Order: sequence, then structure tokens, then C-alpha cells
Amino acid sequence: MYPESLKNLIESFKLLPGIGEKTAERLAFFLINEDEEKTDFFSDSIKNAKQKIRRCSICNGITDKDVCDICGNNLRNKSTLCVVEDPKSIFLFEKIGVFNGEYHVIDGLISPLDGVDPDDIGIEKLVKRIQNSKYNEVIIAVKPSIEGETTALYIKKIIEGMNIKVTRIASGIPLGTDIEYIDSMTLERALNDRKEIE
Amino acid sequence: MYPESLKNLIESFKLLPGIGEKTAERLAFFLINEDEEKTDFFSDSIKNAKQKIRRCSICNGITDKDVCDICGNNLRNKSTLCVVEDPKSIFLFEKIGVFNGEYHVIDGLISPLDGVDPDDIGIEKLVKRIQNSKYNEVIIAVKPSIEGETTALYIKKIIEGMNIKVTRIASGIPLGTDIEYIDSMTLERALNDRKEIE
Repeated sequence: MYPESLKNLIESFKLLPGIGEKTAERLAFFLINEDEEKTDFFSDSIKNAKQKIRRCSICNGITDKDVCDICGNNLRNKSTLCVVEDPKSIFLFEKIGVFNGEYHVIDGLISPLDGVDPDDIGIEKLVKRIQNSKYNEVIIAVKPSIEGETTALYIKKIIEGMNIKVTRIASGIPLGTDIEYIDSMTLERALNDRKEIE
Repeated sequence: MYPESLKNLIESFKLLPGIGEKTAERLAFFLINEDEEKTDFFSDSIKNAKQKIRRCSICNGITDKDVCDICGNNLRNKSTLCVVEDPKSIFLFEKIGVFNGEYHVIDGLISPLDGVDPDDIGIEKLVKRIQNSKYNEVIIAVKPSIEGETTALYIKKIIEGMNIKVTRIASGIPLGTDIEYIDSMTLERALNDRKEIE
């Protein structure tokens, strides 16, 4: 019913998460009414990003170089390593702008039930990096879930004896959230991890 | 902060309506993790659609030919013309599959307050087409709004005396909608346009 080229554009948008038929149609119709300059930019951006983006050979983060800007930055604090489960997390932490150490991306979380072993998420590479560096603290910044806890404990255990402090980002009630909307597991955690007011 | 090529991809998604920073980031990260086959398809679809899609020289609908499939189809009922305000409307009506006449797209609606005159929306082309055809009914299928009514009345007036029935698609309460959620203007219209139960 739609012309072939329009149909393909709609199908393209439908590849994206959370975008169904109606939204895809709306976006496609919007785009064909834009200037060619913009549609070319869009089209080229997709090709370029796909071709240029790779994983940093040191931290597994996302970069368009061999070594990412953070790993290649000598001004970063080389004594603290923040372990995240996803390249995107790095950008989230960088946006806050309070952490000046280094990052390491593991490929997901250990999940025995789903058959995901430490080998599958690249723990070996992480451990090698820690052995060859001079970190005095490793911060585990993964999702607070059973898999997250398992992964954190595993890393803690495997680098035990290296005289490195292993920490975990805090779990609890998000700022500004009414307690009545918080699930009981989070509430329990918030209660157990209470801090003395100084 | 993001690599240049990723930043451009995020900016590209932000060109789209209803897509802000967060969603653009999510979509960009999703896309760079897809196969190159898919990203190429996406990229090429944008270029192709923009290059090939044009307006039908007869009805102003969207097509990748000079004359669209509907205007070029001799099996369509040549005695009924449905006037819509947007090329997309044609596809919406075609999806229902009950209308077998022809379409004509005007470029928006007459709106004296916004300085949109009949000339701006291509009424002249519509009138010429009607004069050169043998329609016995013209259906006005535009939004039920002040601008929609103005446009409908204008078209009705200008083809008066050509012995053509001019109709308007019905306004009222959408099927399945609770009356309590309907605005009073729509309710008033639904009441005024009530039909005898036969």
C-alpha cells in the first residue's frame, strides 16, 4: 500500500525498541518532509556510528579510537576503578562529573540460572587489569539485583588478598521518592544500610 | 563526552518528534549493537525514501512514481472524490478498505487567523480537477475543527452549481468511548447530528 521506499523506512523505525507500527509511520512521514540536509545527516550518522564505534581495548567502553578518552587520559585518578555492567553506564557516571577514576565494563552479570558464568562476562580481563595496575579501591557499580550481588561478591572474592578495598555503590530510596511507593526489598535494604547522622 | 560519531547519531534521533535526549541515547546505543546489515538497511532506507518519495502530480498524495497507484488505477470509482488534508490520511482510509473512489490532498486547512488562504492550500488545483472530471460526490474528510469547517464550507461554496453532492464525514462520539470523557462540543455535535434508528 505504501510506496516501497516509504515502507522500508517504516520497517527501519520498527527495528527500534518501543517503536510500533503507528509511531514508525509517524516518524517516517515526519522524516520525508524534512530537508535533505537533515535526512542525509541522519542516514550518514547511522553508517558512521556503526563503522567507527568499537570497544576500548583496555576498559571495554565505547569509543571511536583504539583506547578511549578516559583510559588515555593521564589526569584521571589511576588508583580507583569503577566496574560497570554496560558501556552506557560510563557516560551516566561521567555526566555527574564527580568520579575521576577509571572504568571497566564487564559484559553483563553472572547469572547461574541463565547459564552466564564469570568467563562469559570477561572477569579474567578485569582481574588481569587489576593485577597490572595500582588500584587501592575497586567500586562495583552494577544493578542491585541477585545477579548484581552475585557478581559483586565474586569479584570481591577473586581479588581478595590483593590488598584492595572493594566497595559497592549504595542502594536505598531514590531522592524525592515517597516511601509508600518503594518496594519492601528496597525498604529493607535502606533500613539495614542506615547511616548515622553526623 | 560521547565519541563524535555516537554524538551525531544521538543528535539525529533528537531531530525526530517526541524523542528527547534520554530516548535518543537509548535508541543510539541500541542501534550500534545491531548487525551492520540492519544499520545499513536503516541508513539506506532514509536516503532512498527521501530521494524517491514525491507528491503525485494528480492528487498530491505520496508516491515514488509520477502518478500514484490510486490515481493510476482504472478500477477505482471515478465518480467519488475524497478530499483530505494530509497525504497520510489516504493511507488511513485505504487501511479501512471500504472506500474505492479517488483522493485529493489539500495542503492543510484554511485559517484566516494564521494567514492561511485558500490559495495556500491549493484549492485551485482541486477545483480544476473537479471541473475536468465527472464526480457526482465530493467527500470532505478533514479534521472537525473551526479550520476544518471553514475549509469544508469554502469548497462546498466554490463547487456549488456544478451539480455535485458535497458531503462531510461524520463527527461524534468515537466507538467504545464513555460519554463522560467526551468534550461538550463533540457531545453537542453528536446530539445535533443524531440519526433515526431504523
